[in-house]
Amino acid sequence: MQEWRIIEHIGTHVDAPAHFTAGGRTSTELRPAELLLPAVVIDIAARAQRDPDTAITIDDLRAFERRHGRIPDGAAVLMYSGWGAKVGDPDAYRGTDAAGTLHFPGFGVDACEWLLRHRRIRSLGVDTLSIDPGVSTTFDAHLALTGADRYGLENLANLQQIPRHGATIFVGLIPYEGGSGGQARVLATW
Amino acid sequence: MQEWRIIEHIGTHVDAPAHFTAGGRTSTELRPAELLLPAVVIDIAARAQRDPDTAITIDDLRAFERRHGRIPDGAAVLMYSGWGAKVGDPDAYRGTDAAGTLHFPGFGVDACEWLLRHRRIRSLGVDTLSIDPGVSTTFDAHLALTGADRYGLENLANLQQIPRHGATIFVGLIPYEGGSGGQARVLATW
Repeated sequence: MQEWRIIEHIGTHVDAPAHFTAGGRTSTELRPAELLLPAVVIDIAARAQRDPDTAITIDDLRAFERRHGRIPDGAAVLMYSGWGAKVGDPDAYRGTDAAGTLHFPGFGVDACEWLLRHRRIRSLGVDTLSIDPGVSTTFDAHLALTGADRYGLENLANLQQIPRHGATIFVGLIPYEGGSGGQARVLATW
Repeated sequence: MQEWRIIEHIGTHVDAPAHFTAGGRTSTELRPAELLLPAVVIDIAARAQRDPDTAITIDDLRAFERRHGRIPDGAAVLMYSGWGAKVGDPDAYRGTDAAGTLHFPGFGVDACEWLLRHRRIRSLGVDTLSIDPGVSTTFDAHLALTGADRYGLENLANLQQIPRHGATIFVGLIPYEGGSGGQARVLATW
């Protein structure tokens, strides 16, 4: 039996609305029905390999829907960037440059707002450290998502193993009292 | 963003085989397929209210199967004792008497071994502090379960809300490195 000292926002974890939005819901306030969601995976791995600062756009979402069908309402929309393969090398995973700026892909705010408005998503998830691209200093996707009372999923693993459309994810968020999010085991079935 | 100091075995949590069995598997070694299980609920709440030291017997399991059908292979078998209603009052939940002995129900070792041998269960779960009854000093059910490379679930909540037979549970165990178990969000669907 061991004791752990854990920062809420390391490893695979949830960003609750309270993490970025004053008065937002905390970990215990996310309902079980919000933790079991249809999931789609937007694959930008090829582009991200060429440009680590790339962001998911509305065009990416439209291209996804032409190929895989409409993103269901209430879904978790997950970015697969290939960054999970770098997780054993913290510098590569963070993409830190000489000036200390981070470089990894994320969601553009326009895509985030389009998904909130037109697909009524429950969550955005990424296989990187942050919903926003590493270069962001304004955290627009975080603010749009949590401002809409939705939660984020960061440091997801193994997204290449799940279908692009048709999986269901279970978000096993530990209900930290007053938590701004926290560790969550996320598993997919299909 | 907060930091938590957490003992692995508080709240709703998993007892990994390593918690009671030398050389047993740790938290990261439990496979995803072991964390998504058919569940049955053995309701002993009426008896436990009269006798807090009561234990689930093989007769209880046979009575369950006569009424609800065979316990599926590879299931999680969950005890509903009604103890969850006491969780806001630590003394009542522990059932501590004047001598410091704990009193709450659990699994008898015979029932545990019968389930391991004849129903090839994956897990035992309880709505109390321990798989074994509170009065146990030898932890026979823990030893039988973890010795068979199976895991326990303790401090489960809301078992009265799920069907006695036919639910599926997702055990969202945080994969603590070298963990003897740890916090897990457990949700049921049916």
